[in-house]
This record gives sequence, structure tokens and C-alpha cells, in this order.
Amino acid sequence: MSFEEMWADLLPVGRDAASGGYHRFAWTPPELDCRAWFLDEARRRDLEVEHDANGNMIAWWLPAGGARDGAVLTGSHLDSVPGGGAFDGPLGVVSAFAAVDLLRERGTAPGRPIGIAVFAEEEGARFGVACLGSRLLTGAIDPGRARALTDEDGNAFADVLHKAGLDPASIGPDEDLLARIGCYVELHVEQGRALSEPVGIASSIVPHGRWRFGFIGEGNHAGTTRLRDRRDPMVPFAEMVLAARASAEGNETVATVGKVGVTPGGVNAIASSVTAWLDARGPDDAAVQRTVTETHDAARRAGRAHGVEVEVEQESYTEVVDFNQGLRERLAAVLGDVPVLPTGAGHDAGILSSRVPSAMLFVRNPTGVSHAPAERAEPADCLAGVEALTSVLADLANG
Amino acid sequence: MSFEEMWADLLPVGRDAASGGYHRFAWTPPELDCRAWFLDEARRRDLEVEHDANGNMIAWWLPAGGARDGAVLTGSHLDSVPGGGAFDGPLGVVSAFAAVDLLRERGTAPGRPIGIAVFAEEEGARFGVACLGSRLLTGAIDPGRARALTDEDGNAFADVLHKAGLDPASIGPDEDLLARIGCYVELHVEQGRALSEPVGIASSIVPHGRWRFGFIGEGNHAGTTRLRDRRDPMVPFAEMVLAARASAEGNETVATVGKVGVTPGGVNAIASSVTAWLDARGPDDAAVQRTVTETHDAARRAGRAHGVEVEVEQESYTEVVDFNQGLRERLAAVLGDVPVLPTGAGHDAGILSSRVPSAMLFVRNPTGVSHAPAERAEPADCLAGVEALTSVLADLANG
Repeated sequence: MSFEEMWADLLPVGRDAASGGYHRFAWTPPELDCRAWFLDEARRRDLEVEHDANGNMIAWWLPAGGARDGAVLTGSHLDSVPGGGAFDGPLGVVSAFAAVDLLRERGTAPGRPIGIAVFAEEEGARFGVACLGSRLLTGAIDPGRARALTDEDGNAFADVLHKAGLDPASIGPDEDLLARIGCYVELHVEQGRALSEPVGIASSIVPHGRWRFGFIGEGNHAGTTRLRDRRDPMVPFAEMVLAARASAEGNETVATVGKVGVTPGGVNAIASSVTAWLDARGPDDAAVQRTVTETHDAARRAGRAHGVEVEVEQESYTEVVDFNQGLRERLAAVLGDVPVLPTGAGHDAGILSSRVPSAMLFVRNPTGVSHAPAERAEPADCLAGVEALTSVLADLANG
Repeated sequence: MSFEEMWADLLPVGRDAASGGYHRFAWTPPELDCRAWFLDEARRRDLEVEHDANGNMIAWWLPAGGARDGAVLTGSHLDSVPGGGAFDGPLGVVSAFAAVDLLRERGTAPGRPIGIAVFAEEEGARFGVACLGSRLLTGAIDPGRARALTDEDGNAFADVLHKAGLDPASIGPDEDLLARIGCYVELHVEQGRALSEPVGIASSIVPHGRWRFGFIGEGNHAGTTRLRDRRDPMVPFAEMVLAARASAEGNETVATVGKVGVTPGGVNAIASSVTAWLDARGPDDAAVQRTVTETHDAARRAGRAHGVEVEVEQESYTEVVDFNQGLRERLAAVLGDVPVLPTGAGHDAGILSSRVPSAMLFVRNPTGVSHAPAERAEPADCLAGVEALTSVLADLANG
């Protein structure tokens, strides 16, 4: 299967016909279809698939002799945000298969194992913690906390794992697997307008996290409850949205409220509670922390003024990640004069970098749009990405 | 079946075990169960049930001789807001059956027909237009517009009627039925803290309406999209919430945003659109209109500043309703010195009053809470309500 054929097979999976956006949440039917596609592509190439305890999968191309150590890992993820684009995640997996095909066509036999990884729940769209699969693998999240995470329908992560045939008691760091990985190189579509060449190398991931704000007021009738008798959680929530924006401007960070839940959600009823999620990212930990603190302070002040209780919980936080200097230099030596750029987006490569030398290749995004249907990469740039990844894998697996 | 037995039968229908709130949306299974309960109670009393073309039902107690004109109509509705209370609507229907029982126990035979009405979709919780059944009956909404209304899952009102065995082509004003109604008296739980006696008489319903605000921006990645490149609809939406509150304070109205929809709703994605509903009510049309206009202006200004398109559509509006003076005086003569009070809540009696003399009885609400699980009326007050309604029906049906 060529790059184009693999792409065409994945394209309809989980795609909303009206908006063109993808809904591939971890272990839901569309994401399971993506996993089945991955297993088919691995089988087609005689790659041996390893299922780890955390829901991640690796398709291995082993060297003659069957050595399993010092592996060169590539890949990405197949899940999406709600209404996401086609490229975020799948581009890295499809490109990895295409790179293996190119290496074989060119007669390159790997001196070290090459693995194509699919990490589970990278977007955190179902259980609220981004990079859940790689966090579990590397020990960046407590397995007990992970087991208790629930999706919007109240399904616990532990139960979803169990239904998927995995043992929830076995999740957590996998030192054996980590010890076998020599390095990880993830190819990904760039997610802003920062890359003007077809391919670039990531320097760092800026610190980022998500915080859940709960506003607890009192439900009541929208017509008969006087303003002064209200404990309307919608008002301090609105103050919080504006405070987050203002604080981001002041601290040169970005802050986003993209998900909101209102209970009970009736037009003629004052809400009893509002839950909202803040995504904040910035150049350094202090700037992000200031943004969250200022937003929280404003929410609390508004809550006090309206008799509304305000709770905040940090759902995830990732400090700045500087990708491995040696590995970056090696990629640059292979690829020549390509741009080197930081990114505001989290990735499994950022999580893995705490345990194994990690790096990323970016493919140009002409629209600058991501996490939305207009996310795009030109076919020629995708093929340039495959060529770059092929060269990098050849170098790393035989260097 | 006594009042208490009828109440006990209805109590579990559509009740959420965790919150205690009711979810009885028009023609959903819990509301269909309520309708089945109504038909059983009518059958038990040998009342003849009339199904009109608009989804409303009337259980008739006809006078000896079978005259059908000059009817005294009572009743209310059985649907609820999301997470609503037990009393809003059902109290009027249960009290009407109990009043018929009392009249019969006391040997009162009606000189005119007495009808117990259940009006469809009073809350507008499913199709967005409050009092949809009574609006159709009286011609207060265009049948074509009503047919095209859709619920959150995209089901058209016409299709839902069709599935319920009704002919969507036949909906609209029913002059024959209207001509047979001499007057309408609706008993309802009071929805604030305005009534200090067990029973009161309504003077008027203040003007009220609902407006749908659409904020159309551009979905994008929460981490990689610079603030200045964003068209984030959440920000002008938040400005709109605060403007509505401020404008309500300035105009001595009430304004509520209790329902919000965010697309796509991902934590790490800037929303592409936000839809929010404004409920506004006040002492006069001009004050309500100023509140809506000021809120709209603020939303538009914020939209322009953020590259977000703002659309507003009035979903419903009801001008001030002064209940029929003659009928109110007659109720006061029957009940003696009871409080007379206006209400900020809309009711089918308000819609019917444009075509037939209408009035309302209120039963005291000790918590002042409504449209929420804490909504309540004391048993003694409920029985006082039944006594009052019984006296009123006896007077109107034989006076």
C-alpha cells in the first residue's frame, strides 16, 4: 500500500460528513477501526506487533539476527480531538509505514530494530489527560489516578481497558520496553504558520497544561428569581473566560476555553453549575503559572460576588521539553539546512523525552489551522516528510 | 385515586436518581408515560378524552344532556425543563382531577362542561418554543414555522408529531375547540417567594422571551494559534453573558443565559462556534427590549473585536398578559381575601388569554426555587389549592 492508498483508507474513518471533522476518541469504534487498519498494515509488511500494557502498540521491523535492543522508534497517534483534522497523528503513522517501504525498496536492512508506535489517547479527548498512553509507559502519571479517570458518559478508564482486552491492574511504567528504545523520532504536521519549508526539526515544546474549573451555584427559575437572589454560575464563568484572555495577553502566553458543560442546561433555568476547561501554554513555566493564577483569582473574585463556589483542578501539566541536543544535531546533519522551531503543541515525543532521547520532524501546514477540519498538509510536503523520515531512520538504524 | 396516590404515581417518572431533577421532554419516553398516566386517570373517572391536532389533550366531564359549549377549562402541562422540579405543571393536572373528585363527592353536577387540559411542550425544553401546544391552538405561532422546529438531535417537530400518531399537516389554530371554551383557569405552583398565603390569584404575566445568539468564529489549535490570529467565539460569548447581567440590572429586568452549546468542544481546540440562549423578562416590553438590544450590541461589539460573526434570533416573545378582569374578580369573590400577584413565568394561561378569558391560581412555594429539584409546595398548601380550584370550578360551571 502506497502512502496515498494508506491515506485514502484512513480518510473516511470517524469523519463527520457535515463538518468534515474527525471524531476518533480512544477505544471508540472509529479509533478501533484505526487500530485495525494499523494491524493490517503491519501484517502486510510482516512486522511483529507488540501490544504493551498501556494500550500502546508497536509494529517491529527487526534486524537480521533478531536483536531487540537499541531500537529506533517512530510513529505517532491515531486518536483525534472532537472535530479534529485528518493529519494530526495519522500523518506520523502513515509516513512511518511509507518510510519502511522506501527503506526496503532501496535495499536498506536495519542494523537496529525499527518500531512504528501508536500511542493511546494522545489528545486526551476522552479521559481528559493528554498523552495518556505515553505518560503511563514512562511513569509520568500514577496508574491509580489513570484507572479512575472517566469519560463524559462516566466510563472509567479501567473499565474501558478491560473491555479492550487489557488488564487495568497491569498499567504503568514499562522499564523493559523503555530499555529497548534507543531513541524516538515522531513526524507530525506542524500546527501553526511557523514552518515555511516542507520539513523542519523541533527544538522544544513549550510548557502547557489543562485545568478544570468548576462553578457551583444554585439552579432556579429564570423568570421568577430576582437578580439579587441568584447564585448564577454562568456569570463568574464568563468573567473567567475574559480574565484568561487578558492574562494571556499580559503574560505573552496563550489561554483557551474550548470546552464547557452547563447543568442542567435549560433556556429558562438559571444553571446550577458550570464546568469549563482552561488550556494554557507559554514560553516558560512561570508565565503559564501566572496565567492560571490570575485566571483563578478572577474566577474566585467573581464567584464571591455571586455566591458561587469556584473549584480548580490541574488535569495535566507538562514542563518545557527541550528535545535531545545530540539527536537534533544528528537529524540536522542528515537533513541539511532545514528550519528548527519550537511548538506550542504537546506530543508523545515530549513525554518520552524524559526517558529516551527524542526528536520531532514537522511537515509544513499551509493553513496554520489544526484541531479543525481545515488542518492540511500538501501532498508534496507529505512526501518530503516521508523522504526525510526515511533518511533519518536509515541513519539512526545503521549509524 | 386520591391526590396523594396520583402524586405518588407520577413522582418517579423521568426523575434522575442522582440529582432528583426531572427530564420530561415532550414526546420522550418519560413524558409519554405522563400522558399514559393522564389517560388512565381520565378513564378511571369516565372522562371523555379529546386529542386535538396540536398534541394537547382534554379530559371532559360533560353535563347531563351532553352540552359541549361554554366549557370551564382547567389543567396545566406535564413536560419539564431539564432537571426541573416535580410541581411545575403536574400540580395543576393532579389538582384538577382531585377537584373533579371533590365535586362528585359533594354531589355537584356541572351545568357546563369541565375540561382538564394537558398542553404540549409548555417548557419549550425540546423544540425551543415555550407553550408550543397552546400557541398552535390559538394561532400564536405559524404552523409552518412550528413544523420546522428541531430538537437537539435534529428531529423535526413534524416528524415527532407523525411518530406520535398525529398529522403534522393538520396543526394550527382550532377555532371549533376555542369556541367551546368559556374560560380557562390554570392552577400552578408559584415560582418565587412572592406568595405568603397558601393560595393566590395571578394578576398578570410580565413580558418575556428567548433569543438564540450564535457566535461563529474559527476552530483552531489551542497551543499553536497566536492570540492575534484567533477568531475565538468564546470571548464575545463571555462578554455577552456579562452584558446581559449588567443590562438587566440597569433596566430592572431579569436576564439569564442557562443553555450554551460549544462546537467542537475540545479542551485543546479553540471553538469554531458557540450558541447561547438569552431568557429576558421585565415589567414592560420596553425594558425587556432594551435589555436584549443592549446585550446584542455588546455581543456585536465584542464579535467585531475578535473577528467573530454574531447572529441573534428571537425564538419566542410574549407581551405582558393582564388576566381577564371579570374572571379574576369572580375568583376573588369565591376565594375571599387572597393575595393577587404578578408572575415572571410564562404559562399556557397567558397564551390562551388572547382568545378566551383566562386566570390562574398559585400555590405557595416555600423555597422560592423552581425549575430545579428543590422546587416544592407543602402538602397542606396543595390541598388548599385543590379546595380553591374546586370552589372556583363549582362556581364557574354552575354560575
